[in-house]
Amino acid sequence: MKAVVLVSGGMDSCVTLAEAVHRGLEPALMHVRYGQRTQSRERRAFDAVADHFKVPLPHRLVVDISHLAAMGGSSLTDAQEEVEDGHLDAPGVPRTYVPFRNGNLLAMAGSWAEVLGAQSIWLGVVEEDGSGYPDCRGEFIRAMEMALRLGTAALDTLEIQTPLIRLDKAGIVRRGQELGAPFHLTWSCYRGEDRACGTCDSCLLRLRGFQRAGMVDPIPYR
Amino acid sequence: MKAVVLVSGGMDSCVTLAEAVHRGLEPALMHVRYGQRTQSRERRAFDAVADHFKVPLPHRLVVDISHLAAMGGSSLTDAQEEVEDGHLDAPGVPRTYVPFRNGNLLAMAGSWAEVLGAQSIWLGVVEEDGSGYPDCRGEFIRAMEMALRLGTAALDTLEIQTPLIRLDKAGIVRRGQELGAPFHLTWSCYRGEDRACGTCDSCLLRLRGFQRAGMVDPIPYR
Repeated sequence: MKAVVLVSGGMDSCVTLAEAVHRGLEPALMHVRYGQRTQSRERRAFDAVADHFKVPLPHRLVVDISHLAAMGGSSLTDAQEEVEDGHLDAPGVPRTYVPFRNGNLLAMAGSWAEVLGAQSIWLGVVEEDGSGYPDCRGEFIRAMEMALRLGTAALDTLEIQTPLIRLDKAGIVRRGQELGAPFHLTWSCYRGEDRACGTCDSCLLRLRGFQRAGMVDPIPYR
Repeated sequence: MKAVVLVSGGMDSCVTLAEAVHRGLEPALMHVRYGQRTQSRERRAFDAVADHFKVPLPHRLVVDISHLAAMGGSSLTDAQEEVEDGHLDAPGVPRTYVPFRNGNLLAMAGSWAEVLGAQSIWLGVVEEDGSGYPDCRGEFIRAMEMALRLGTAALDTLEIQTPLIRLDKAGIVRRGQELGAPFHLTWSCYRGEDRACGTCDSCLLRLRGFQRAGMVDPIPYR
């Protein structure tokens, strides 16, 4: 059975894909570029992960929603704004939040799922140990699932699968290890291209996860 | 107060915009092209309607989601498939349905609303006399509103306004007439560019609406 899997090139979506494959599904991979600084590096990671899982080309879709960048409102896409150093326990929504990004991603994934006849969409969101983004919360995911079921012609029973949502980063590392997820091919840094910066929000979360899982992150850092 | 209004260039969104202006809101217009055959004609209509309502340029956003066309699945965007003649009372979902189009539109409008600080999104969907598209139903609109409230940082009380949803086409023509909506600037045909075909689903609905309202449609037909 086909499943649409959103794959950014980062470690969370890589483990999510490994989970879908582990359950015996035939994955169709959607990669979204939205004008973020590191989009060419993330695209390379996406290609490498897709190759690793031997996903055929018709089941790979790269879409550009750089109009989200044109709207402004995020340090990830706004060239004038610096990406700030991470503060993992700071309250509120960080400036790296792209307004309703996951809502846009899930809407597109729903269109593709309907065309393909897929009955599930897989998304690597993390609620507990996440960055405080509102579009990573379970209650949002359930509401969007309802909207997709009601707003499509053939997806009455569509499920949005978020196998990582209750895990922390260390749990994701451990689960990825069990499934043989290719962490060495993934990319998470908001700043770097060749070596990860090690200090942005995304790097801090990733490094802490590997450390707590008692593993060494295989990608290069500055 | 700002409001994001989705304006296709057709008559329904034009009346919806007239309604938002009538309520004293400051409209920000989003026009979406998605690879449909008549997108350049619709863009001209959008520009004319925006000019009519004196909407400043920073409050006009044209976005391209032609990746929906790349996915296939609709005669509106699939160049190999002919647009069929309309059959107004045929059951089921017509082939002109673009999978989850309104879901994608509302997700983008939500991102922009959050950036602008708008607290409503206006969409000219019609349920009763519509074309049977699942993403025009009121229950879908309410589910998407909930997803937008939960999945954004500052839109807890966002409302999706659909002032036409309970009207039939004749009611829309009458309401537009009351509000002074510029019907002569709008375009609805799925086929034509200079003159409307008069036989596609969209033309049939439009012509029947004007006829039942006892008015003459001001645009040229073949």
